[in-house]
Amino acid sequence: MKIIRFITQQGKEVIGCDWDGKTASLVEQSADYGFSDTGERVAVVKILPPVEPSSIICIGLNYRRHAEETGQEIPKYPAIFMKYPGSLAGHKDPVVIPKCASDPPEVDYEAELGVIIKKAAKNVSEEDALDYVLGYTCTNDVSARRWQKHAGGFQWTRGKSYDTFCPCGPVMTTADEIPEPQSLAIKLRLNGEVMQDSNTSDMVFSIANMISYLSQSSTLLPGTLILTGTPEGVGFTRKPRVFLAPGDRMEVEIEGIGVLENPVEQE
Amino acid sequence: MKIIRFITQQGKEVIGCDWDGKTASLVEQSADYGFSDTGERVAVVKILPPVEPSSIICIGLNYRRHAEETGQEIPKYPAIFMKYPGSLAGHKDPVVIPKCASDPPEVDYEAELGVIIKKAAKNVSEEDALDYVLGYTCTNDVSARRWQKHAGGFQWTRGKSYDTFCPCGPVMTTADEIPEPQSLAIKLRLNGEVMQDSNTSDMVFSIANMISYLSQSSTLLPGTLILTGTPEGVGFTRKPRVFLAPGDRMEVEIEGIGVLENPVEQE
Repeated sequence: MKIIRFITQQGKEVIGCDWDGKTASLVEQSADYGFSDTGERVAVVKILPPVEPSSIICIGLNYRRHAEETGQEIPKYPAIFMKYPGSLAGHKDPVVIPKCASDPPEVDYEAELGVIIKKAAKNVSEEDALDYVLGYTCTNDVSARRWQKHAGGFQWTRGKSYDTFCPCGPVMTTADEIPEPQSLAIKLRLNGEVMQDSNTSDMVFSIANMISYLSQSSTLLPGTLILTGTPEGVGFTRKPRVFLAPGDRMEVEIEGIGVLENPVEQE
Repeated sequence: MKIIRFITQQGKEVIGCDWDGKTASLVEQSADYGFSDTGERVAVVKILPPVEPSSIICIGLNYRRHAEETGQEIPKYPAIFMKYPGSLAGHKDPVVIPKCASDPPEVDYEAELGVIIKKAAKNVSEEDALDYVLGYTCTNDVSARRWQKHAGGFQWTRGKSYDTFCPCGPVMTTADEIPEPQSLAIKLRLNGEVMQDSNTSDMVFSIANMISYLSQSSTLLPGTLILTGTPEGVGFTRKPRVFLAPGDRMEVEIEGIGVLENPVEQE
């Protein structure tokens, strides 16, 4: 099932499925994380991110060819950082370039597969890990490259946490529809041109491995959104470098999920 | 006012003040972030952390003499990272040493002043920043030193996010009672011995400066808990090194707030 969260004409936040771009069918969620289609169609006034995450955890350098393009070794352990929850944005919401990251340009895109945790996960084995996944979504780990480096003593959080720097959506595909998440095509188009074109098979650490690792002696709360790393083709490693500019249009497309589109604006 | 969150004999989560160790006076919270004492005293069955944080943001290397003891330069920008929300613990809750961080020992204490954000803060000036503070609390940024370094490609989140690694409380002192937060004595005692003994006047970046910096083009949500860095005297820079062991007892004491006490256990 492809789930959306949206605002109705009555101003209510609800969840739905079978979205045709204008209307969707209302969905009821059961206590055991099941979804059922009520069949009642309503107008979709505004799409919201498909999840209100309890936290946003990110993995860096998790595609082999992306680690190579940045000149770094294939990591032995997943590089783990977090984004402020206020950085979340929805489908078609503008990504806003901060004043402090404008001159010269430095803001970059990163197409990523987002994993949404269903139930509290602690000391989960790799074998059981995918049982803890509610669903998958398209995300974009937007990054201000200078702030990612110089600000924060080489901690990446500050440069990746500006408002709108975590677009997410439009749909969450429930886990039952993606039994094999390590073979999904993942692409990013900038103004229609393909900039990233890879497959989740290039991940260094599998999704099951990451969930197990993140949950060691630690509780991943329900609703945790995990960004699983970006493939090669980011802007700052290109020659010449490519950074986002007002008027740009980004599309993240992931097989089995859909297309997350965001225009770019200036603060 | 010194606010606590706690569980009553009826199993309800409530807030109170004037806590005497056994009972407290129930407090009502108004929509404009005011607190009023109802005068109704009830038994405190279990103390909870004084805040349910929307996120936990931390500043590294923010005391001059701590930066010096770790052999690092005084940072030009605040080092910013986050802890999982699941790492939160309350007063007297055990801090649990994870199995994966036990042999050899590596888990360390870090007494820190915690700042709780009152209302959404974005592009806040340093002059206005303290208007966004709801109150202050004692926190302990418990850290697994090897995991902080080797795991996560030098991103510190993994080594600082194990369950119980963010003790917090017991009280939140409301901001009106601490008009000058840059002159508070801060101490950590381990089994009664003073290990950290400093003052918030040694901070590199003031609390107002940090709130302004963290809020640049970014929304700090209400309930954000900011850990503002630890002073000198942490275990891993001592000769010989000191790491936490089962049976240890930590106390973080901050002037104008109180004493946060946590025993140490083994997973």
